[in-house]
Amino acid sequence: MRFASDNRAGMLPEVVDALSAEATEFGGAYGEDSATAKLTALIAEIFEHDVAVYPVMTGTAANALILASLCEPWGGVACHEESHIVVDECGAPEFYGGGLRLVTLPGEHGRIEPSALDALLRSGVRGDVHQTPIQALSLTNLTEAGTTFDAAAIAELCGIARRHGLRTHLDGARFANAVVGTGETPADLTWRAGVDVMVFGGTKNGCLAAEAVVCFEPDLLPTFERRRKRGGHLASKMRFVSVQLAASLREDRWLTAARHANGHAARLAEQLVTIPAVDLMHPVEGNQVWISAPTAEIEVWERHGAEFYGSPLPGDGPPRSLVRLVASFATTDDDVTGFVELVTTAASTADAGPDSTSTAAVNQAASATSTQDCTGEKA
Amino acid sequence: MRFASDNRAGMLPEVVDALSAEATEFGGAYGEDSATAKLTALIAEIFEHDVAVYPVMTGTAANALILASLCEPWGGVACHEESHIVVDECGAPEFYGGGLRLVTLPGEHGRIEPSALDALLRSGVRGDVHQTPIQALSLTNLTEAGTTFDAAAIAELCGIARRHGLRTHLDGARFANAVVGTGETPADLTWRAGVDVMVFGGTKNGCLAAEAVVCFEPDLLPTFERRRKRGGHLASKMRFVSVQLAASLREDRWLTAARHANGHAARLAEQLVTIPAVDLMHPVEGNQVWISAPTAEIEVWERHGAEFYGSPLPGDGPPRSLVRLVASFATTDDDVTGFVELVTTAASTADAGPDSTSTAAVNQAASATSTQDCTGEKA
Amino acid sequence: MRFASDNRAGMLPEVVDALSAEATEFGGAYGEDSATAKLTALIAEIFEHDVAVYPVMTGTAANALILASLCEPWGGVACHEESHIVVDECGAPEFYGGGLRLVTLPGEHGRIEPSALDALLRSGVRGDVHQTPIQALSLTNLTEAGTTFDAAAIAELCGIARRHGLRTHLDGARFANAVVGTGETPADLTWRAGVDVMVFGGTKNGCLAAEAVVCFEPDLLPTFERRRKRGGHLASKMRFVSVQLAASLREDRWLTAARHANGHAARLAEQLVTIPAVDLMHPVEGNQVWISAPTAEIEVWERHGAEFYGSPLPGDGPPRSLVRLVASFATTDDDVTGFVELVTTAASTADAGPDSTSTAAVNQAASATSTQDCTGEKA
Amino acid sequence: MRFASDNRAGMLPEVVDALSAEATEFGGAYGEDSATAKLTALIAEIFEHDVAVYPVMTGTAANALILASLCEPWGGVACHEESHIVVDECGAPEFYGGGLRLVTLPGEHGRIEPSALDALLRSGVRGDVHQTPIQALSLTNLTEAGTTFDAAAIAELCGIARRHGLRTHLDGARFANAVVGTGETPADLTWRAGVDVMVFGGTKNGCLAAEAVVCFEPDLLPTFERRRKRGGHLASKMRFVSVQLAASLREDRWLTAARHANGHAARLAEQLVTIPAVDLMHPVEGNQVWISAPTAEIEVWERHGAEFYGSPLPGDGPPRSLVRLVASFATTDDDVTGFVELVTTAASTADAGPDSTSTAAVNQAASATSTQDCTGEKA
Repeated sequence: MRFASDNRAGMLPEVVDALSAEATEFGGAYGEDSATAKLTALIAEIFEHDVAVYPVMTGTAANALILASLCEPWGGVACHEESHIVVDECGAPEFYGGGLRLVTLPGEHGRIEPSALDALLRSGVRGDVHQTPIQALSLTNLTEAGTTFDAAAIAELCGIARRHGLRTHLDGARFANAVVGTGETPADLTWRAGVDVMVFGGTKNGCLAAEAVVCFEPDLLPTFERRRKRGGHLASKMRFVSVQLAASLREDRWLTAARHANGHAARLAEQLVTIPAVDLMHPVEGNQVWISAPTAEIEVWERHGAEFYGSPLPGDGPPRSLVRLVASFATTDDDVTGFVELVTTAASTADAGPDSTSTAAVNQAASATSTQDCTGEKA
Repeated sequence: MRFASDNRAGMLPEVVDALSAEATEFGGAYGEDSATAKLTALIAEIFEHDVAVYPVMTGTAANALILASLCEPWGGVACHEESHIVVDECGAPEFYGGGLRLVTLPGEHGRIEPSALDALLRSGVRGDVHQTPIQALSLTNLTEAGTTFDAAAIAELCGIARRHGLRTHLDGARFANAVVGTGETPADLTWRAGVDVMVFGGTKNGCLAAEAVVCFEPDLLPTFERRRKRGGHLASKMRFVSVQLAASLREDRWLTAARHANGHAARLAEQLVTIPAVDLMHPVEGNQVWISAPTAEIEVWERHGAEFYGSPLPGDGPPRSLVRLVASFATTDDDVTGFVELVTTAASTADAGPDSTSTAAVNQAASATSTQDCTGEKA
Repeated sequence: MRFASDNRAGMLPEVVDALSAEATEFGGAYGEDSATAKLTALIAEIFEHDVAVYPVMTGTAANALILASLCEPWGGVACHEESHIVVDECGAPEFYGGGLRLVTLPGEHGRIEPSALDALLRSGVRGDVHQTPIQALSLTNLTEAGTTFDAAAIAELCGIARRHGLRTHLDGARFANAVVGTGETPADLTWRAGVDVMVFGGTKNGCLAAEAVVCFEPDLLPTFERRRKRGGHLASKMRFVSVQLAASLREDRWLTAARHANGHAARLAEQLVTIPAVDLMHPVEGNQVWISAPTAEIEVWERHGAEFYGSPLPGDGPPRSLVRLVASFATTDDDVTGFVELVTTAASTADAGPDSTSTAAVNQAASATSTQDCTGEKA
Repeated sequence: MRFASDNRAGMLPEVVDALSAEATEFGGAYGEDSATAKLTALIAEIFEHDVAVYPVMTGTAANALILASLCEPWGGVACHEESHIVVDECGAPEFYGGGLRLVTLPGEHGRIEPSALDALLRSGVRGDVHQTPIQALSLTNLTEAGTTFDAAAIAELCGIARRHGLRTHLDGARFANAVVGTGETPADLTWRAGVDVMVFGGTKNGCLAAEAVVCFEPDLLPTFERRRKRGGHLASKMRFVSVQLAASLREDRWLTAARHANGHAARLAEQLVTIPAVDLMHPVEGNQVWISAPTAEIEVWERHGAEFYGSPLPGDGPPRSLVRLVASFATTDDDVTGFVELVTTAASTADAGPDSTSTAAVNQAASATSTQDCTGEKA
């Protein structure tokens, strides 16, 4: 019943094997090694496009380094108000970007509303030295709500962005889950839809600490390498980062792993929605299930060892909370059935006697009102 | 008909006299001079409170230095979405603050909606290293919409802020107009209402380039002096900044000047609202009049030499634009009567024949949808 | 006997007159005014070259904004180890430059030793992402030791710099004194010798707060205007800055003022060197006289109202201190004769009885060992 | 003959085993895991002191985050002019430190000369807002020249620093080699000698990417965790970083590995110094051998597959170059004997006929004059 986050799972066996094999070798440092070259070739093949690849070890670093490389310090980045770069990176984009600004946009289920992006870019056209020019669009796929953008939706947003001269960034910390979820190709979901540069996430999908910055326009980021070094993100033994990603890419393992995770999330959702006390809050399109339930019952789940993140929902009546459940390559059928059973039991018990829930509390005793508080630190 | 901005007016005669008198003297450098000491005493008297005073030469510097001193680089500043620090300072707060974040809030007529502030501060209580803690509230009085906050409104917002541990900043670039507009005392509008530190603006009210950072809790800003120097805002001949402000403060000249400006704005508004084509967009509580009018007529005003800032309004039907008119200590009765006459005439002409307006344009050929585009660079 | 700094003098009468005349006018804001346009034309004429001119109000801002515009955040600036940007600006270049590095070089009397520059630029050619590429050379004329660079010396250093692809910056806070001191033309001392961009100082030569960034390659600084605004250095009433400089430039007033200052410094030095206890520490080529003298006597000067900066010198024997004396446009013959008389008297007194000096102290009770501590905050 | 750097070696078998074992587990994220807690306990035991431990994945990040946490943005860090933070981190300390300054000091064989530190701290006592206060001392052990500081030498420097209120930082990227080299205890080389916080390096000693920031005064770095997250250095799967270090620490493996490396360096040096053409440039006290040799011979070594870093030395006569040879836990006896044989043969060949060396070149065609160019990117 370990649904707190996919970053709590370990490593794919093939990733371990790759590390183990590389461990007895000498190799070039700082990316001048054959493993990194091979990784670049693999990613180019998967994306059907020439790419520049820059491995780093965290997604926050990857996102922030890209945005800093795309924008001037006085520039703005249009992004969803609940995106990871806004709510969960402690201002890393502002730090790396020398004080750039994240300009937030609304949208249901974690997706930016195109008309909101359009309105933002149509306003503020003065172009003088006083204002903040929007210079990049940042998307996330899977979104922070666990939903997918399909290629058409990405193309629509990137099209608006490009008409106004913006560069486009995709946070793909869970890109594997999005590819599986949409059934579309990596190419269709990225450069063919107008994405300039993306973070291809490995850490949440069975790597130790491995994210690849993938740039579809090779000369787009002339300052990236300086920024990566200066930020302390140029691993001396980068080859060990590259072999992780390469191992997960070979033989479609990344997709197999994501398919496993998405499938378990889907089965979990299917069964949870049949329980009356449980409401589904977002469509289940990847490896996440967002539900609401009575706070009192949620506390029971927790006491019985279920792991997840939750936060109180505002409103009158008996208190309810929002819960995020994340499946990973390592989620088992037992995790799913055990959790469904627990929820079912707790629901019956709760019906039997409200007194038992009078000390209800949730993981986080917060008065949160949005998904932001759930995805929080666990992303 | 010079209503573009109060920063287009010159200097009060007494300010010129003070500069002239100081010019033949030697004096201490970098603020170690008697003029700055006298200024501090004057401000303490006016605000009925001990103060630390730091003169600088621009409002942008004053605001940014304060916020950087109040917040950590990973902190957030709650502020109105159309405030000057958000829309007109090229990201100076982010620059000085090492990448801090402005977290914007809505509110009518330039005033933050208290419930929005409250909701923001109630959410996001997780307090871990991933999120952006809100550390300061920034208010503006006069607001960017030319309206006032009275003492009660400030106290309500500062009260919410303080309950959540925030520090409070007031951008008083047009504080004189707010004091005159509300009829309340400087003390009531600031520290008695919970303001920790403010910018007391002189430049828009008859000084050359003089803003005083006024801190009501003398030890609140231990890093301010370092930041001021490091930002290049420690004037070697600071005494010349201080004498400007002191001259404008003596004998209530700052209030006389603001009363003059507010009065002319009021008279302008009174007469403009009687013209059917003109709509008042914000209450007139200071030295600004915000109206909307047919774009075609506005172009006529402009062609006849009226000076102001405008921007197109969205919507169907004949195009209309938003216009900001700002009075200053130097505005004359002729400015007012001349402009009213021009608007009246243009309205009649426009009625006579719509063809004449077919090439309608405004100062800025923008598709702006908010006051933001009007206050723009001229603030 | 007011020799503490030229920034302690007031304003030239013509500067006051210009401010006074401008005060009754309305004018464009943020540099879109006729006064700034006229200033640009005046400077172009004086330098016999097309120029872009950006007025700001402090020298620290001017220097830092230029260096930040010339260099990348990971770049280095070669400069003298005792230059103002190193010892007296609280790290403003690092702040504006996003963490750039000042790489210091030695040289006698405030002038960079050409062979040291050459050696620096010949080393460190690896050009990888790990090191700090030197991207600009910064010179100062007058130097921090009050000496001049002549055109040939500037050309030699700029020649070395340009051969290695560096841009060149000149801090001309006291450029007027350098022009008078060398007898060479503004053009010969700048662009003809290889200077790309300079700070033309007005504040120390009779203005209130006025420095012009003068760029001899008009498109060299594409980000300067953004940085100026973002740093809070875009004066809304810039026309009042521009009229100060313009008034000081007309009819060669800036040179007349500097000639006055340099002349008084020369006369002061001539007489002081005849006093046995006094040693001249740097050649007197501008408006500064650097001497050493017994600490006990210096204390006497101070007690008798002489104003200057001093700091203890290391060494055995009776304590001696370093003293900087700065003349300005406002220095009088009485200042000079009064001070010489005082020094002469103190020397006799000191000879008469050592007891009188047993509590010797100097302006600053420091154990300073270099000129750095003298020019300190007063520059 | 793989002597380019210890960061080109792979992983210790026990580190691989630990990763492998952890890979099948679920665990807490962002450091809230038992592995990180165990690591802290292990380090506390080894250092005989309570510690706060913050694992990160690169040494550059560790150094920069510490210095940024110890100093204000306008502060200075006293350090050796050839230290890694100065010459090989692309300005990371300045970046993380918001523009702090590295103030460089000379000293033979990579060790700061105590009198130079003392002189620096005795000067510049003015303490006003214009200057750069030195706030931290940074030492490196092993130094960049491969030499050690013993406990007494560290205590002397830290003593000077502390008397002036500085905090002390130790870059221990190769601390294991220093412990073995000096034969002193971890405690004696750090907190007992006055070190406040150190980087305990694992990467160069058999880990994948693992450095521990070890703080001997637990509350010394209140902003460290924020900075680590904001810099993108808070690994979600931190437990995999912690297990690397823990595996290398158990059963003194870190010392065994370092003893292996130091031993091979010593044997290499012993034999090389017997070759007349080879000069030893620094004492061999750790795992590095610094020699000079004729450039023509060095080229021969390189052509025969020896791996190392070199750079031309200035001077007249036949060109010579500086060569750095680094041993690691994975260096073999064959590496040593093969290299010595190669050098011996090349020397004989060179003696036989100078013509054979006419196209002499070295790894880096640079005109470097210091060790800086050798340690370069290979840190």
